This record gives sequence, C-alpha cells and structure tokens, in this order.
Amino acid sequence: MTVIAHSSAVDELKLALGDKVSVNDTIREHHSKDESFHTPTMPDAVVFATCTSDVATTLKICNKHRVPVVPFGAGTSLEGNCNPIRGGVSLDLSQMDKVLRVSGEDLDCTLQPGVRRKQLNDFLSSYGLFFPVDPGADATLGGMASTGASGTTTVKYGAMKQLVLSLTVVTPNGDVITTSRRARKTSAGYDLTHLFIGSEGTLGVITELTLRLFGVPEVIAAATMQFPTVREAVDGVIEVIQFGIGVARIELLDSDAVMAVNKYSQTSLPEKTLLLLEFHGSSDSTAIDIAATREVLERHGGEGFVQTSDEAERRKLWQARHDTALACRALKRNGRIFATDVCVPISRLSDCIEQTQHDLAESKIFGPIIGHVGDGNFHVVLTADPDDNAEVEYLEAFHTRLVERALSMEGTCTGEHGIGVGKIDYLVNELGHGAVGMMASIKTALDPNGIMNPGKIIADSFYV
Amino acid sequence: MTVIAHSSAVDELKLALGDKVSVNDTIREHHSKDESFHTPTMPDAVVFATCTSDVATTLKICNKHRVPVVPFGAGTSLEGNCNPIRGGVSLDLSQMDKVLRVSGEDLDCTLQPGVRRKQLNDFLSSYGLFFPVDPGADATLGGMASTGASGTTTVKYGAMKQLVLSLTVVTPNGDVITTSRRARKTSAGYDLTHLFIGSEGTLGVITELTLRLFGVPEVIAAATMQFPTVREAVDGVIEVIQFGIGVARIELLDSDAVMAVNKYSQTSLPEKTLLLLEFHGSSDSTAIDIAATREVLERHGGEGFVQTSDEAERRKLWQARHDTALACRALKRNGRIFATDVCVPISRLSDCIEQTQHDLAESKIFGPIIGHVGDGNFHVVLTADPDDNAEVEYLEAFHTRLVERALSMEGTCTGEHGIGVGKIDYLVNELGHGAVGMMASIKTALDPNGIMNPGKIIADSFYV
Repeated sequence: MTVIAHSSAVDELKLALGDKVSVNDTIREHHSKDESFHTPTMPDAVVFATCTSDVATTLKICNKHRVPVVPFGAGTSLEGNCNPIRGGVSLDLSQMDKVLRVSGEDLDCTLQPGVRRKQLNDFLSSYGLFFPVDPGADATLGGMASTGASGTTTVKYGAMKQLVLSLTVVTPNGDVITTSRRARKTSAGYDLTHLFIGSEGTLGVITELTLRLFGVPEVIAAATMQFPTVREAVDGVIEVIQFGIGVARIELLDSDAVMAVNKYSQTSLPEKTLLLLEFHGSSDSTAIDIAATREVLERHGGEGFVQTSDEAERRKLWQARHDTALACRALKRNGRIFATDVCVPISRLSDCIEQTQHDLAESKIFGPIIGHVGDGNFHVVLTADPDDNAEVEYLEAFHTRLVERALSMEGTCTGEHGIGVGKIDYLVNELGHGAVGMMASIKTALDPNGIMNPGKIIADSFYV
Repeated sequence: MTVIAHSSAVDELKLALGDKVSVNDTIREHHSKDESFHTPTMPDAVVFATCTSDVATTLKICNKHRVPVVPFGAGTSLEGNCNPIRGGVSLDLSQMDKVLRVSGEDLDCTLQPGVRRKQLNDFLSSYGLFFPVDPGADATLGGMASTGASGTTTVKYGAMKQLVLSLTVVTPNGDVITTSRRARKTSAGYDLTHLFIGSEGTLGVITELTLRLFGVPEVIAAATMQFPTVREAVDGVIEVIQFGIGVARIELLDSDAVMAVNKYSQTSLPEKTLLLLEFHGSSDSTAIDIAATREVLERHGGEGFVQTSDEAERRKLWQARHDTALACRALKRNGRIFATDVCVPISRLSDCIEQTQHDLAESKIFGPIIGHVGDGNFHVVLTADPDDNAEVEYLEAFHTRLVERALSMEGTCTGEHGIGVGKIDYLVNELGHGAVGMMASIKTALDPNGIMNPGKIIADSFYV
C-alpha cells in the first residue's frame, strides 16, 4: 500500500479548484497537527472544499495520483487523527458549514460537516431544539461523526453512534453515496452509516449528516457533590443508573482535576472527589430525579449537595469542566495534551481508577482524572512537552500500563477519541488479529489505493 | 459467485459432527421456510450446532466445498431471511440457548444466539432486569440481531442496533472474532458490531451476544385511546414525542386491525383508530407522563382513555396486539403472512398511511394496519395463499406501490424485517447503486466464496 505524493496532483487540483487549493506555509502548518502532542507533519497542499462536488473532484484527482487525503474539520482531535503523517492533501471542510434543513416534527436536521457544535446549538435554539452530544471541544459535526465522539451527555442521550441517522459520503474514487434514508429506523442492508462513524476519514469523506435532535428541556438543573473516595462516588452512580433515575450528565473529577479547574477557571469547588450532575426535564420530573439522586448519593457518602438552575452559573460550571484539559495544560510550560481515554464496564471503574491513581503516585506523574462516570470512561489528563523525548516515552509507558489494565477489565483503549496514530498497536491487543484483519479487508475493498488518511487505525502490517 | 452444493460436504460434516447433522425430510422441511409466504426451499442438510466450535467446523467444511450456509434460529422472520433458497446447509442455532453471564451493576448480559426473547426475560426477572426489544414474535436473540429487529419499545429503549454491545462471530473461513469489548462505549476502529447487526447471516454467524439491559420499572401502566382519524392520532403522537414525554410503547391500530384482534383474542376494543400506550417508571413519574400524554392526545381528538396497571390485563392487551398478524392470517384459508414494513419520517406518516388506506380501498385488498407510530414504521398485514400466483402478484404490485410511496417520502422499505429475498430490488431503489455496490464489495471481501446465505440482501448482478 505505497502512496506517493506528487506535485502534478497539486497542479491538477489547482486547475480544477483554483484558489480553493493552497500551498501557503502558514496554512499548511495549521493543518499539520491536532490538539495533541503527536508530531506535526505538513501536508503538501490544503484544499478548502465548499461543496460535495469539490470533495469528489479532490478525491478523484488524488486517487488517480495515489496521493493521501486527510479530512480536516476543527483540528480538535486528540490522537493525531487529522495529522497528515504521510503528506498529501489536507482536505479542509470547515467552509462547508451550513445547516441545510431542520424539522421540529421529525426532531432531526441535515447539515454540512464543517458545522461546529456550538454553532449548531445556537442555530437550533430558535426552534426550541438541541443536539446533545458534547465532547467539550467546539468540534465540527463531521469530525465528531468520524471520530465516534461522545462526551458528557452520553449517559442520557447516547453518543454519535446513536444519534446519526444518515450520512452522505464521497468514496475514494469520487462517487457520492447516501448511507441511509431519513426514517428514524431501518433494516435495509448493511449498516453503512455506522461503518463510517468512527472510521476517522479512512474510508471516505462525510459531506452531509442527518442527526437526531431533542426538544430543549423546560428545566436544566446542575448540581455538585463531594465524596471521600472515588469508589464511593462510583458506587453511588452505579445505583443511580440501576434505578433508572434520569441524569443527563454525571461527571467525576478527582481532587487534582478540581484543583486545576479552580486555578484556571477561578471557581472555588471543594478540592475533593467531585461529581458534577445535570438533570433535564419538566420542573416536576427534574425535582423527582434530583431528590432521588441526592438520596442515593448521600447513602454512598456524598455530601455538600449544591444545586443551581441559574443558566449563567450552570454554564460557568460546565465551561470549567470542559476546560479541564486546558487547565492542566496551563500548569506546564510548552505542554501539549497527552490524552488517555480508556473505558471499562462500570463495575470495574473504581478498580481501574484506583489502580491508575496508585500508578501515577508511584511514577510521580501529575495526572488529574476526569470521567464520564456513567459510561465507565475516564481520562488521565497528561501534558507533555513534545520536544522532550524522554518525557514522552515515560508517559507512553504509563499509558501502555493503563490500557493493559483497562483491557484486563474487559475495557477498551478508547471510549471516544478514536485510534488515530497513537493507539494502533493497542487496537490489535484489544480486538485481536482476526477483527483488525477484517477491518483491513474492508479498508482494502473500499479504498484499494489506500489514499484515505493512511497510517491511521490499522497497522501497515495488515496489508501485506 | 457460483455455489455448488455437494454430498461430499455433507459426508464430511457427518464425520466431524456426527448426529448433529441431519438429512431427515421432516427436519429439512421445517428449515425450508420462515413465517412468510415466500417459497420454501429444502436445505441439503441441517446442522444443529451446540457451541461456537461446531459453527466454525461447519463453516470451514462448507467454505472448502463452496456449499451455502444459512443460519436458522426460531424461523420467525418475515422476508424469507432464513429460507435456504440455494440449498446447502441450514445451520440451526436453537440449541445454543444458554445465558452465559448477567451483570446487575453493568446492566448487561452475554448469551448464546439461540436464546429466545421470552426465555431471556423470564431468566432476567429474578435479577430485576429485562431486555426491552420486543418484535412480537418469540424470536431468538441471534435472529433479532441478524435482522436488525426492533418493535414496540423502540421509541423509549431503542432497537437491536442501539442495544447490542458486542458480538462473537464466526467468519466464513471458520475464524472466531469478537467485534468489541464489553465497555459501554468505544471508538476503537471500524464498528464491526453494527456491520453484523442487520446483515442477515450473509457475512458470518453470530455465536455470542452481549446486550444492554434495564431495571424492571417499578410501575408499568398501559392505556388505550380512540381517535376519529389516523391523522389526529399521529399528530398527537408527534406532539407527545416533541415534548419528550416518557412513553415506552405507542402503537397504532386502524379499525380493521382492531376488528381482527377482537375476533381472534376475544377482546372488546372499540373498532376505531386506536392508540395502545405503555408507560414505565416510578409511580410518580408514570403518573406525570400519563397525565401529560392524555392531555396532549385529547387535544388532538383522542377519547375514551382507559388505563390499567393490572399485569394480567396489560399482558392480555399486548398479547392481542402482538397476535395481530396471526389474527389477520386466521381470517383467511391457507393464508400466510405477506408483511409490509415501510418506515417514514413521522411528519409524513399520516400522509403515507392515508394514501395506503386509499390504495387498499381502491384495490379491494383487506389490509389491517398496525404501526410503531413513534418510529414512523407501520405494517399492512396482508395474507396470501402462496399457491395462488395471481393473488401473490396482485399483492406484490400493491407492495411495490407502498414502497415507492414511502421512498418518495424519504422513508425506507423496511423498518425492522430486513431485506431477505423479498426486497432486494427495493434496496437498490432506496439507496442507489453506489451504496449497494459498497455492500457488495464488503460482502466479497469478507465472504469471497459467497457461501453465507446467498441470494439475500444484495442482487446477484452486483457481483459481476
């Protein structure tokens, strides 16, 4: 699967797409990396697509010339997912940023892949609607689908996997397909929609998405509560979920994470294990849910319950939570984010976090922990100086231990960030040669020239 | 993609699997068909697998001999999905009927594919848990995953697509893979789990499933309500869903369907457009949900609200609903079910049902309508005498008009029954040559000899 970049491809792209093609150094540098510590690599050119036809033209030309194409949205990924590690074309979709259709009756909308999460919800607010997936970063919806993103609201609303109804995709040879109709459910053939969700731009380019929406709840109430230990907090959460109590978000921060947040966001949260909760519903139903949650959590050692329905206060709280990674990065000079992302069955979550905290202490690594605790997913927010090879190696060894720990507990190396370049070897440990070999067969069948985001997800050794 | 059945394959299977292999006529006849009117075809042999290794042995031998293999569960499919239309081996999984593991903390379980829906919920009841997907028939869970089944509870809990966490699959060459870890969510590589859900046994054989579970609600309350027209009922349902009111089931029966049900199940429901509802939750939350639903539906012309929380009464009501197909079949001599299964965006559901009722009247076809109205999915329950070619052709022409109507409304030809043999041409109309061609590429990559359930989902012309 060799891919050779070629200046004649760039010439042909310029001929076809004019000034949508850039070889400017600053622009190429911007497209060389994501938010992570992974090594930047310059693309040979950047194409700014404004429509599906631009994408098809780009792919046809690049496929003919065997030039890599790496889709680029907001660049907020955390595993080098959009780094053009083998050069070629960075296909920037950020100008495809229109919401094309909204239906309040069907609770769905269709949009271009460059629409960003906050922009979408601002747009939808006048309809009384919202799209719940919230990974924290202001990512593009195309990127969120490609990564299989989720985030803080998954416990109630589901992840991208549950909320994408249909995709329009340009295949590596430039054909345009639609993966599904707009009906709420279907059993019509293989599930191409889910094949593209989480495929990280390695099978084609998403140029339209149809998403499920929800009515903005009458009441949104946030609350915080502290716990003596992670185990007590997690046990409480398990019981809340077993009882089917309607929590919309239920996030864990360990004391280091709270400390970093307080420093960065000027909050004054108690620096103990913290649960951050949110409830969506009518005033009646949220009152019932809040009372039930509080009772369960207090039985598990929770204390200091503080509730707010004030929007400004609530937004500040969640902004602080979402800024945890930035808060941690701010503690370090020349720091870039080294995100870990394991997810285990919730019954093993306390074990996994406790053993990880022990490892951090033993290894003398500063690693605040934040967790989407209702889903069993947590991040150790490491920061690395990418120029310090010894540090990167030391953190990578810790990460390997963390992933092995999660795998031994029937977990996954990535709950929501994807495989990218950083987890290719872990994927094989996680699913075995048979399953990854099946992925490679699919990749070869759909992208025989291997032009789409090469070097991601599947190790090269599977293609021999 | 030619496939040649061969008696030497059956001899080799007998040598390897002994009396798990049967060529008995009665047994082969039982495996020649499903519940539908589609023409039965005898398999050359039936293999009764009792473990994953039996499945692997069967597939290895059949792959070597290029003999078709058609997985068989309970035989309750409705599109000829398990009919061995090109002979070969019917691989019966009904003896793989063990629940292997249940976790109350993780709200999940792992089981063999031959476990049936009712058996699973009987088993889970002692844990205070249940699995919600309810297609009516007492299907196997393996069959339900393979078909991409859903049913009456999808509006609250989701379909098989949302509730399968992981699958163990035997590939056509006899390898055993696991599609995902047991964590609640993952972004690790291509979504092989969803690739197999709804693939109707054309890519491999499911030998284990890990499913999401839910706690049995404290209160389950059912209710019925009548409406002057389908449109008023559907408009009411749209508003209930827009408001995010928690309904667990919301089913529509037209007056013909109610009449058939009353006759078959000795119920005395008013023979008008009927909504059958169910609410799950605490006594507080269901009371709130019921009051809100009733208010909305009465504003849309609903009347005669009757509620019951009595379990026997509730079960009788839902059994009557689930027996609608049998009730319709009982009205006809030598009748077999000709199921239609379109699903449209809910904003188009009234139009689609009204136009279909008009078509039925014009065509003088008796076709009661039942609908999973919260999902936009409805069935015209036709019955056909399979020996009456003229009748089958007449109904097929009606079905074609129905599918075209649904497609023109951005709908799908199948919400939950799958493509099987009956809808192969509709699939191309629905998704286009590009998307179906992509499915064919995947099929060829994963099953190069075309042994897995040949002649289903994808038209032969895609393989040239």
